[in-house]
Amino acid sequence: MTQGQEQIEKLQKLAAMVRYYILAATTRAGSGHPSSSLSATDLMTGLFFGGGFRYDPDRPDYPNNDRLIFSKGHASPLFYALWLAAGRLSEEEMLTYRQFGSPLEGHPTASFPYAEAATGSLGQGLSIGLGMALNARYLDKLPCCTYVLLGDSEMAEGSQWEAIQLAARYELDNLIGIIDVNRLGQRGETMYGHDLQAYKLRLEAFGWRTMVIDGHSYPDILTAYEQARQAAGRPVMIIARTLKGKGVAVMENRDGWHGKTLSPDDYQQALQQLGRVDCSVRGEIKTPERIEPEPGSAAEIAPLDYPADQPVATRKAFGNALKRLGPGFPGLVSLDAEVSNSTAAEVFKEAFPERFFEMYVAEQNMVGAAQGLALRGKLPFVSTFAAFLTRAYDQIRMGQYSEANLKLVGSHAGVSIGEDGPSQMGLEDLAMFRAIVDSVVLYPADATAMERLVEAAARHRGLVYLRATRAATPILYGPQEHFSIGGSKVLRSSDRDMLTVATAGITLFEALAAHEELKQEGINLRVLDMYSIKPLDREILLKAAGETRAIITVEDHYAEGGLGEAVQSALATVAVPVYKLAVGKKPKSGKPDELLDYEEISRGAIAHRARAIAGS
Amino acid sequence: MTQGQEQIEKLQKLAAMVRYYILAATTRAGSGHPSSSLSATDLMTGLFFGGGFRYDPDRPDYPNNDRLIFSKGHASPLFYALWLAAGRLSEEEMLTYRQFGSPLEGHPTASFPYAEAATGSLGQGLSIGLGMALNARYLDKLPCCTYVLLGDSEMAEGSQWEAIQLAARYELDNLIGIIDVNRLGQRGETMYGHDLQAYKLRLEAFGWRTMVIDGHSYPDILTAYEQARQAAGRPVMIIARTLKGKGVAVMENRDGWHGKTLSPDDYQQALQQLGRVDCSVRGEIKTPERIEPEPGSAAEIAPLDYPADQPVATRKAFGNALKRLGPGFPGLVSLDAEVSNSTAAEVFKEAFPERFFEMYVAEQNMVGAAQGLALRGKLPFVSTFAAFLTRAYDQIRMGQYSEANLKLVGSHAGVSIGEDGPSQMGLEDLAMFRAIVDSVVLYPADATAMERLVEAAARHRGLVYLRATRAATPILYGPQEHFSIGGSKVLRSSDRDMLTVATAGITLFEALAAHEELKQEGINLRVLDMYSIKPLDREILLKAAGETRAIITVEDHYAEGGLGEAVQSALATVAVPVYKLAVGKKPKSGKPDELLDYEEISRGAIAHRARAIAGS
Repeated sequence: MTQGQEQIEKLQKLAAMVRYYILAATTRAGSGHPSSSLSATDLMTGLFFGGGFRYDPDRPDYPNNDRLIFSKGHASPLFYALWLAAGRLSEEEMLTYRQFGSPLEGHPTASFPYAEAATGSLGQGLSIGLGMALNARYLDKLPCCTYVLLGDSEMAEGSQWEAIQLAARYELDNLIGIIDVNRLGQRGETMYGHDLQAYKLRLEAFGWRTMVIDGHSYPDILTAYEQARQAAGRPVMIIARTLKGKGVAVMENRDGWHGKTLSPDDYQQALQQLGRVDCSVRGEIKTPERIEPEPGSAAEIAPLDYPADQPVATRKAFGNALKRLGPGFPGLVSLDAEVSNSTAAEVFKEAFPERFFEMYVAEQNMVGAAQGLALRGKLPFVSTFAAFLTRAYDQIRMGQYSEANLKLVGSHAGVSIGEDGPSQMGLEDLAMFRAIVDSVVLYPADATAMERLVEAAARHRGLVYLRATRAATPILYGPQEHFSIGGSKVLRSSDRDMLTVATAGITLFEALAAHEELKQEGINLRVLDMYSIKPLDREILLKAAGETRAIITVEDHYAEGGLGEAVQSALATVAVPVYKLAVGKKPKSGKPDELLDYEEISRGAIAHRARAIAGS
Repeated sequence: MTQGQEQIEKLQKLAAMVRYYILAATTRAGSGHPSSSLSATDLMTGLFFGGGFRYDPDRPDYPNNDRLIFSKGHASPLFYALWLAAGRLSEEEMLTYRQFGSPLEGHPTASFPYAEAATGSLGQGLSIGLGMALNARYLDKLPCCTYVLLGDSEMAEGSQWEAIQLAARYELDNLIGIIDVNRLGQRGETMYGHDLQAYKLRLEAFGWRTMVIDGHSYPDILTAYEQARQAAGRPVMIIARTLKGKGVAVMENRDGWHGKTLSPDDYQQALQQLGRVDCSVRGEIKTPERIEPEPGSAAEIAPLDYPADQPVATRKAFGNALKRLGPGFPGLVSLDAEVSNSTAAEVFKEAFPERFFEMYVAEQNMVGAAQGLALRGKLPFVSTFAAFLTRAYDQIRMGQYSEANLKLVGSHAGVSIGEDGPSQMGLEDLAMFRAIVDSVVLYPADATAMERLVEAAARHRGLVYLRATRAATPILYGPQEHFSIGGSKVLRSSDRDMLTVATAGITLFEALAAHEELKQEGINLRVLDMYSIKPLDREILLKAAGETRAIITVEDHYAEGGLGEAVQSALATVAVPVYKLAVGKKPKSGKPDELLDYEEISRGAIAHRARAIAGS
């Protein structure tokens, strides 16, 4: 037997065992996606143990490891079985698949040490892989490759085509996708079935190298991986013809088996078809070249320098903050969706062009790529209009299950952006981000607060969202003021405060103006800057609840899920009335002040509400 | 002069006037996107008045009108100026552009009678147009065409490529896109600049017919529109080379002019460059063929028929409801994202195959297309997993500004789906949909309630979201029970209720079980089914607040923005404590009951909390 034949025989043995464990685990669990796992088994066994994939399992975080992402996350049984085959999982552990408390979840999450990212919402893996490839090529400058296993159904997702465009644009020849073209979606055929040329044509039109192979032929598979690694300036897509359920006659290439496990009888029959499986066989993963990236060196961060009498938009302060912090955070990178002149990310871009990535008008991919960068140890700040972050809500949601250290900045918040009108107004962003598990949500009112909170975000481990205002606003806080996640500021208070206004951002200035007006009438307002919307400073609110008659919240945001409801929730078991001023009507074009009045969140509206409460 | 030359001279005159008004309106407003409007002026003047576009301005809703969508919504000055040129807008009205209260908003919204849809968030217009084309081809069966003006920057959006795939799949040769390839994005060049072949290659790979033209040459433009209308089984993309700011030397083809208006001096110079403009010239739009669609006839709706002792999953009831209502709502159509066997939309598909549209794994396009269908008078129900509706949040957001009569159903809500794990769990959907202005959010607990609320949704004018459960649940309500938007049900109550549990959906059953347990201990729980989460039945909550010691809310959803905060908000000025039980920790795989316990939203957790409050 030649060395090649020996290798292939070994791979086939490993694949048989992998198939066995796919069936054993899913049958025992009574749920899972065996057919989707079986179609990709040969592709992945060939990748892991055929010399293509280079990875040190003792050091999952080793910088020059190749990366593998299962964009088709429902093939998790295959993923776990491969690690068993690599000697990193016992049979006993494998059989805890999908059990409560097991790291082997239904779709991979951060609980499994070898999962690069949480997947399971289709069409997101290629973006994450793109981020990792960007990191390897342009930041760490290492020769490692990023592999992404893709399903055919998920190629319908637009996010994939964002990643495909950007990968070609960035010449990421270290990004290798493998499409498991098994023809069958969740219910029936995919759009292209087994028409592999359809995929080839489309991917080549977008500038990728392609290889069309038989996804169950080891010679094809091994050759493809070898050729894929030969850098040639373009990302690579291996388009593999496979059979869903390959290896199990009852499900092989048959519709109606997506997400279905075997009955006890079918399981026994399947075991017979697999033949004699050697469960002791283990495979070796090739070790990566020992290369470390250049260590970044942190330098001193310059102090703040905002003249007290010059209004600055918090979005501009965001850009300034990135530039100011750049030297102190060598891993800090900026991604923007073709609006960097609006979000001010261009300030960072001009100072650190090698750390800025233009992601074009493709927000889903931008967030996914940022996840990839974060998971490889970088500190990505993602920016666009707050309204357009709604485009990437699924990616933001999934990022939490990867525990990605992601920072997002949404500018042009609220009706106060003015004449551009509602399509450009972020009015749901506070609700959207508050609902994300373990998120931090910050809404600084002035340039000082923004700079301090961008730094706090950079130091915080986990997802942070910062809301930024379009208009220039006065400097409220001097450089000595301290801001923290979970903090707040009391801007106006006395021993005779009748009512409290709890607000943040652009409406804080409205509250301060209302305070002035009402002081003349003998109504003292306490004014709180609740710049940390999540976590919220409950203590300061309890104090106000104890010392004033009522709380009025004000926000340039719709009424549901934002600051008002956060305050109402924090005080829900306290006997203080909480009134909420928020955007209630579909907004329209107009001057900022006209719109604040129209939506009854202006100084006039605050004063009016305060008088009504004071009088009652 | 030949007839052709005469026509072109007329078009040039109209275009000159259109350019004049673009400049006049934006300069006066001091904001807007003149350069982006000028690049598309010849394309659109040629479309409107060259005989291609067929539309009766006296009857914007005429079924056989062609449709035109400005996917590049920021070119609104051009859009309005065209209608002025058609005699439908006065100069005075034109000059109210962007003023508060003017129907001529910064980006088109429902306030302008000729805007087919609100646009301004890029990359959404082609999906909306696809929906209208689907309607014309497969439902109304009319020969009208749908035109979509696209920007080049927005071709980076994945949603466009979802639409592009689906349009080819559905052979929509009545869908004609025009890409205004002006090379310059918001800041700098787009990915492909003036490389028109890049667009041609990609679009043809996806099965579209393409035509590459000079976007400022009327012979090119008119020929393209004529050829585009010749149906040939494939959608058409006209790829037009244009110059941003065409006609105004200071901005023509120059970077840095996106979204910038002219200074007074530059404006005067530009007027000189335009030359003598005849502001009295008007153009005629060709009238459409007088064809009406077959009127649909409403037939009787069958009664409900759920045996009281057979549990049914509310997602299955959703499918049944669509089928049952189908005869009574001839405009009802169903769109699903390749999960119709999970969402049960396949029940409707089997009964009414010509009214079901498989939209594949591409949720953004699905929602956009549904908008298009709704705006053409159909009643679309969009379904997928609740978790995956986060993929389309921007489209959902924008749909409200079009006032699209959209119905969305999200299944597999909550941790209670079990072993598939967090990627598949809808845990942010109530917050997401509550934050959408003017939305209705419903969460029926049993099959009866689901059927009744699907019907209520169908009868309601506006966006409705229905949350569906994966697991089979008992029948709580008989066929005679009435359900309404804004309503609720009192399931358990007495004169001696100590505490109230306000809940909905899957946790309602937990509350009922807790009620039983606590009754034994002498603690009477009032149990409220708050199936209408928005609008919320505040009256029933006020009554409970007056008659019981405290309210406990329970939801299989994260703690922010959902039912709990809705109740806390409704009672924020009432002196009753409201305790909230919700999902607080990142969920994992596991059995449904294990997860409900882990997240402390189970019967045990409810009872435990109730005892603690009762004891205090």
